[in-house]
Amino acid sequence: MSDFKMPPSLSVCGSEDAAERLLSEIWGKRGVFTCTVANTLTSTIPGISDAGDTPDLTLFTPAADAELLVLGRTVCMKGIPINPGGIPTPATLTKAGLELADMPCVIVNGGCRVNPNVPYMEMGGECGRSILTGDSVSRAAETFESGVVLGRTLARHEDYVVVSESCAGGTTTALAVMMAMGVARENLVSSSSPNNPRELKTNTVMAGLKAAGIGIGDLADDPLRAISCVGDPMMPVNAGIIVGASESVPVIVGGGTQMAAVMAAAAKLRPSCIGRIFQGTTRWLVDDPNSSISRLVSAISEDIPIVYANMDYSSSPYEGLQAYEWGYIKEGVGCGGAAISAIARSEGGITCGDLLDRVHEIYRGIIGQ
Amino acid sequence: MSDFKMPPSLSVCGSEDAAERLLSEIWGKRGVFTCTVANTLTSTIPGISDAGDTPDLTLFTPAADAELLVLGRTVCMKGIPINPGGIPTPATLTKAGLELADMPCVIVNGGCRVNPNVPYMEMGGECGRSILTGDSVSRAAETFESGVVLGRTLARHEDYVVVSESCAGGTTTALAVMMAMGVARENLVSSSSPNNPRELKTNTVMAGLKAAGIGIGDLADDPLRAISCVGDPMMPVNAGIIVGASESVPVIVGGGTQMAAVMAAAAKLRPSCIGRIFQGTTRWLVDDPNSSISRLVSAISEDIPIVYANMDYSSSPYEGLQAYEWGYIKEGVGCGGAAISAIARSEGGITCGDLLDRVHEIYRGIIGQ
Repeated sequence: MSDFKMPPSLSVCGSEDAAERLLSEIWGKRGVFTCTVANTLTSTIPGISDAGDTPDLTLFTPAADAELLVLGRTVCMKGIPINPGGIPTPATLTKAGLELADMPCVIVNGGCRVNPNVPYMEMGGECGRSILTGDSVSRAAETFESGVVLGRTLARHEDYVVVSESCAGGTTTALAVMMAMGVARENLVSSSSPNNPRELKTNTVMAGLKAAGIGIGDLADDPLRAISCVGDPMMPVNAGIIVGASESVPVIVGGGTQMAAVMAAAAKLRPSCIGRIFQGTTRWLVDDPNSSISRLVSAISEDIPIVYANMDYSSSPYEGLQAYEWGYIKEGVGCGGAAISAIARSEGGITCGDLLDRVHEIYRGIIGQ
Repeated sequence: MSDFKMPPSLSVCGSEDAAERLLSEIWGKRGVFTCTVANTLTSTIPGISDAGDTPDLTLFTPAADAELLVLGRTVCMKGIPINPGGIPTPATLTKAGLELADMPCVIVNGGCRVNPNVPYMEMGGECGRSILTGDSVSRAAETFESGVVLGRTLARHEDYVVVSESCAGGTTTALAVMMAMGVARENLVSSSSPNNPRELKTNTVMAGLKAAGIGIGDLADDPLRAISCVGDPMMPVNAGIIVGASESVPVIVGGGTQMAAVMAAAAKLRPSCIGRIFQGTTRWLVDDPNSSISRLVSAISEDIPIVYANMDYSSSPYEGLQAYEWGYIKEGVGCGGAAISAIARSEGGITCGDLLDRVHEIYRGIIGQ
């Protein structure tokens, strides 16, 4: 810990001691980045998800994000995933972080309707049903166990592991699982839109819990059942990777409020992972006035710090990127975790400005300028 | 190369200089082991394959091998894959090597009828048809490209990469592809039985070539077409991994005569991989009087050395293992490559005797003694 000093590119929410201890363990070190892609038909409920230009296109977003990370271009659809209005996927920042960290990227399939056209780890999951069914995820226990096996494998020769997700509709399923577990008792989850459709999400979650016959907090001790009833297929896989990898190395849980549900599950299934994990995210998410990642995470444990990259797109010449400053996107595809990885790999030498420069290069390449 | 000295556990066929140069690069280093599993219906032609107790069980062997490597037990079938007579799969030696090398194992799905119940890399391939159709593998070009992507990813943080296979019926498809490419003009491939059914294999290959309208050597410059016509789905994936990984690190091609066909394809598709790869196998294969790995490999290039582990099971108290000395099994599931990895990781400290001790532990665990 002697040579670790928090750089201006990073800030901490929650325990600074825990954050500095974990950051010092990965400072200058090499990690592996994973992104678990999955679909839940919850994302096709009109108005629930902005992670795609239309409700049906939300099902293509995870596969397209994976293709963008691995190939630098999309195969399953034309162009890249955008929010309505043309705001580009946060995978642009993820890719910048991976390139600057010189970090391998492993795509993990939690269960997709649309599979990515790149090599991916198959975990035996299936596309999730709408949470309105109250029976939204098949084989959660099995895919959790597969996640544990994968997490252990990834940790063998790496100094740390990043887990992340691309799963449209995932903040709604996250809210539902945290409600079922009693970690959240009100709607604190984020949205990729500044106009977070909070009432629609809350109503959808309550309808899902009712369909499953679950009250708030009923499944505090059974996170895999909570996921099976009202979660999405990304969750058990990522909870498993966290549990398996954190047995031997630190884990960066990259992402926003969706990943709080995953951490809640992992912490309940394997309490010893606390102290070995931190959430890695962005300033945009932490500053979001319409959600509260800090309240969600502290409800899981006071010993899970939130480290965030102080990304700032206000000087970008591209309106689609400036929109991140207006409350769009905020997080996703582990963009915060990838940014933190680049900063950590370089012992703070790489700054948020360097990351933005690389995002511009990637963005120009994609839009063909 | 200063501190490298060939240990008694290893021997070389072909260029000793090239072998020593590559071994010195990986000496004491950390690598990743991959095993590509696939099925070809060729294995169900009665009498072709002994990699399974019956022709139909040969389709379960790859998945069961993968489960054994990752979980230490099988899920898709009872017991472990055996040859008729109860001789255990070479995955027992592979597992011993992986444990002693402390090496992560990545299962890659080339295209299976029976998928393994463990996390695996999905490459978009399909179970292969019988080569008697003359149209045995779908999507060879695509899965080769996926292999290249995976090989590059694996090489990012590892000092070397091992490729291997479990694909019953694979010596017949290997012979067919090498005939189509003109690398082999007679039947030099091995068998997991001491009674190599050479005439049946040769007749099957000639019928496959005829069905595809190919003469010997016609596809010397088009290995992916040779694989599409008369190969198996393991081949394009492994050729791709070799090409992608060898751009930055040495590659051990673990396996027997099946992998000669893969090397022939990789060397034609990317000649620059020569000098960065060596075949890693066992004494049993090199000493086989019914095949000739050295003639096959030297027909591809004089600059691909064969390194083999001097495994000797003659002192084993178990008849199923002693059978390896009688000409059964010889290679498979990258057992030679895994053994060499353990020896290299320990800079020669781990011996073939240590490996056999560990095989005994694993074998006793499996048979429940």
